[in-house]
Amino acid sequence: MSDNRIFVFDTTLRDGEQSPGASLNVYEKVEIARQLERLGVDIIEAGFPVSSPTQFEAVERVAGEVGMTVAALARAKEIDIKTAYDAIKHSAKPRIHTFASTSDFHILGKFGEDKYGKTLQEKRKTVVQMSYDAVAYAKTFCNDIEFSAEDAGRTEIGYLAEVVEAAISAGALTINIPDTTGYTLPSEFGNMIAELRKRVSNIDKAIISVHCHNDLGLGVANSISAIENGARQVECTINGIGERAGNASLEEIVMALKVRKDYFSYYTNIKTEEIYNTSRMVSGFTGMIVQPNKAIVGENAFAHESGIHQDGMLKNRNTYEIMTPETVGVRKTKIVLGRHSGRHGLKARLDELGYKLTGDELDRVYKMFTELADKKKEVFDDDLRTLMGDEINKESDFYELSNIQVSAGTSAIPTATVKITAGEESLMESATGDGPVDALFNAIERALDIKSNVESYQVRSVTSGRQAMGEALVRIRSGEKSFTGRGVSTDIIEASGKAFLQAINYLIKFQKTNEINNHEKAKIDAI
Amino acid sequence: MSDNRIFVFDTTLRDGEQSPGASLNVYEKVEIARQLERLGVDIIEAGFPVSSPTQFEAVERVAGEVGMTVAALARAKEIDIKTAYDAIKHSAKPRIHTFASTSDFHILGKFGEDKYGKTLQEKRKTVVQMSYDAVAYAKTFCNDIEFSAEDAGRTEIGYLAEVVEAAISAGALTINIPDTTGYTLPSEFGNMIAELRKRVSNIDKAIISVHCHNDLGLGVANSISAIENGARQVECTINGIGERAGNASLEEIVMALKVRKDYFSYYTNIKTEEIYNTSRMVSGFTGMIVQPNKAIVGENAFAHESGIHQDGMLKNRNTYEIMTPETVGVRKTKIVLGRHSGRHGLKARLDELGYKLTGDELDRVYKMFTELADKKKEVFDDDLRTLMGDEINKESDFYELSNIQVSAGTSAIPTATVKITAGEESLMESATGDGPVDALFNAIERALDIKSNVESYQVRSVTSGRQAMGEALVRIRSGEKSFTGRGVSTDIIEASGKAFLQAINYLIKFQKTNEINNHEKAKIDAI
Repeated sequence: MSDNRIFVFDTTLRDGEQSPGASLNVYEKVEIARQLERLGVDIIEAGFPVSSPTQFEAVERVAGEVGMTVAALARAKEIDIKTAYDAIKHSAKPRIHTFASTSDFHILGKFGEDKYGKTLQEKRKTVVQMSYDAVAYAKTFCNDIEFSAEDAGRTEIGYLAEVVEAAISAGALTINIPDTTGYTLPSEFGNMIAELRKRVSNIDKAIISVHCHNDLGLGVANSISAIENGARQVECTINGIGERAGNASLEEIVMALKVRKDYFSYYTNIKTEEIYNTSRMVSGFTGMIVQPNKAIVGENAFAHESGIHQDGMLKNRNTYEIMTPETVGVRKTKIVLGRHSGRHGLKARLDELGYKLTGDELDRVYKMFTELADKKKEVFDDDLRTLMGDEINKESDFYELSNIQVSAGTSAIPTATVKITAGEESLMESATGDGPVDALFNAIERALDIKSNVESYQVRSVTSGRQAMGEALVRIRSGEKSFTGRGVSTDIIEASGKAFLQAINYLIKFQKTNEINNHEKAKIDAI
Repeated sequence: MSDNRIFVFDTTLRDGEQSPGASLNVYEKVEIARQLERLGVDIIEAGFPVSSPTQFEAVERVAGEVGMTVAALARAKEIDIKTAYDAIKHSAKPRIHTFASTSDFHILGKFGEDKYGKTLQEKRKTVVQMSYDAVAYAKTFCNDIEFSAEDAGRTEIGYLAEVVEAAISAGALTINIPDTTGYTLPSEFGNMIAELRKRVSNIDKAIISVHCHNDLGLGVANSISAIENGARQVECTINGIGERAGNASLEEIVMALKVRKDYFSYYTNIKTEEIYNTSRMVSGFTGMIVQPNKAIVGENAFAHESGIHQDGMLKNRNTYEIMTPETVGVRKTKIVLGRHSGRHGLKARLDELGYKLTGDELDRVYKMFTELADKKKEVFDDDLRTLMGDEINKESDFYELSNIQVSAGTSAIPTATVKITAGEESLMESATGDGPVDALFNAIERALDIKSNVESYQVRSVTSGRQAMGEALVRIRSGEKSFTGRGVSTDIIEASGKAFLQAINYLIKFQKTNEINNHEKAKIDAI
């Protein structure tokens, strides 16, 4: 390996968005993509265009907004590949990312006899040809083609080498080796990469990439072991979100390489000072909470509780700290805005936090900001982040909570009254419940004549101090699909009502638009 | 290595409890210790007896309750070692765990010239002698002595070997190599263990242990790499809680060994079916939330969102699942209790969930259960877990929230009224706020004439469905110390009030008892 540069391929918008409950709208995807550009990732995977018109639109919008390489996912099928290219064709640097399953588990579990052959051997042969054809077809659209061998982690090495060789000979410039089920161990996965470099004759014509899932808690370690054995691209997500236990965390891989540059000389182009901003934005938009003991970006990652740790810290920061909070963008003194801060001051601060606003959006946020500044003397960065996670992304045909009234207590019957509006329409209802929030949800459902199943409900204060803003996250489920709504207010009852109504809005929108895609959706795949 | 048995040393009650904000009372420690015994851990570290009378009491109680080895932590000082032994002397299998810092960072940062010598070389010599003396002194109390070289991960290998050799020659039966700052990489840390086995002449007389922190997200991988190189004890915590980004997760290490027994033949005696129960109990008692994408025990760990993943799953579970949820105790069909379930049914179910109740405690929980069953038709396991996290552990001199009344709304001024009692004392107050919760907190503070700084506030619905119970967690800070309170109710306003009052109770108790220990506390150490 002459070059020690590691390319960072972020798949927060594709694999990360597949986290159960974490759906992002187009606006949120564009904001995250812009922030990932500020963070300095080399490639972003913007989505899986063929899977739905909404996915297509989001990928198309992202591709038009950012300057780095934009990848779109496609199964090894012509319709997928063509649709993927259509979504990214206006990108400065389009990449088609196509894939096929290579493990016996997947080949036997997913591929029928009619199209793929009767025996495992016949099916394997079909997959090699299919991989070659997919890459060759993709190559007719653009030059930058990535091929992934799904479930490579559980694929027999000789066969994997055969598939990889075929994909490279068809023109794939990046070969991704995903540990789709998070099954491998660091020493084993590192050996797998080393072995591929030995067995695949044309391996020098492609960059080796890895995509590690975290089912055994080893996603980051497997990625690092792969790098030590020749991988030069890592696929990862912010906060490690993704299917099941998620993907390898971008921030952990990047900081391990940076903190330990004394041990190995790999480097990325990530601006680590943007890590914390990015983490907060993704957590806010997806509703995926980061646990306090999460490495690098958790609330406690730089906290020192026990006596001597604090004592040692005072004497010498190096005693217990291997990196400073500032390196990842955690600031001790947070810049504070107040009611006298003007539009310009607000816009400048939001820019620094990674949010880029157009005129209309800025008007709306500024209005929300002044209302908040009336209640709170000081508006912190986290307050702004929370505001941005709120109404700015509201869609025009959504129901809005225009008025609520609740009363509750130990010996009272919890009662809530709501007024809901959508354009000209205005609905008013009241209901009781087990508590004020339950009463409020009941009143909203009664007003809209809808029933839902609340799957999870969380409220957190996102800023410290007595006048903290509360952020509520409500996840409701309807059949196989779940929807997360988010609401913000200094009053958590109001925040909860907004969040519930937003989830209901998503459910209603899904019910309206989904019939056409339902059949196709059931067949959608991902690595 | 002739034997592939890996000993599991759980330090949830010591290092885990050092998580900022996570303090456990004696009752909670005993319950967790019992559950860890059911889980099958080989050794538990119950605490650090010299650090405070409360710690001493907790260690003593735990030592009397469980049958496995109970370790107590002690600096390399006679007073620490004697106090540690006093706390565990009634244990069936006591272990004194003593430690000294060995890295240059720590030696230069923490050890003064007066006692340790002028040059680094002199100080290093002092530390070797100190380590020998500590083990030899501990050996006068019991046979099972563990020695840890604090910050071994950043200690020069030649010197580390010297310290280890001295500790073993003094009689240490377990030598722990902590990566205190979570600095090392798997390949590096594995080499360190291999190197020690080469360099230390008497290494075969001790079991090598590792204790890995997670600052770079590599705690589990480092532990596994150490095992591959000869370590036979792993120190870890439930949910990976601990200082900063926490410790290696017990559940991830154990399941990696179990799922990949085809790759290496290591095994533990952990009953993996108890993992989920233990995780929920620890999260409930400590208030440390587990993120949905946490491996093994996260809410999404076994969830499959994308279309084909679901499709593939239906065809063949192996396609995307490397272990079944049942292996770690996540049950699909949860046993349900209702209002007609008697005391016996409740007790039997609580036993299965790991909670062991005496007569009085059972009476109180049964009363809470019947009240809940009146509101909810079905009482799930998670409801019971939440109940157990609530009032059962209330201390007798605590203030109680006996009545609340709140009203709030978009155009109303949020107002709360509270009645607080403690024995004969009864206080009543009302206050306004930015929302009903803020108003409630203000009223509680006004009634008790106390001011606090709310550091974080979270509410979650811990069970699904419309009548879910809400669990509130409030962390307040006073100076260097923070306190977490927890409250449960179907009404989140009430749950929030209970949680806040519990945190205030802890603060008041701390203020009353802390003066005597304040000086000593500032000097307390931990690996």
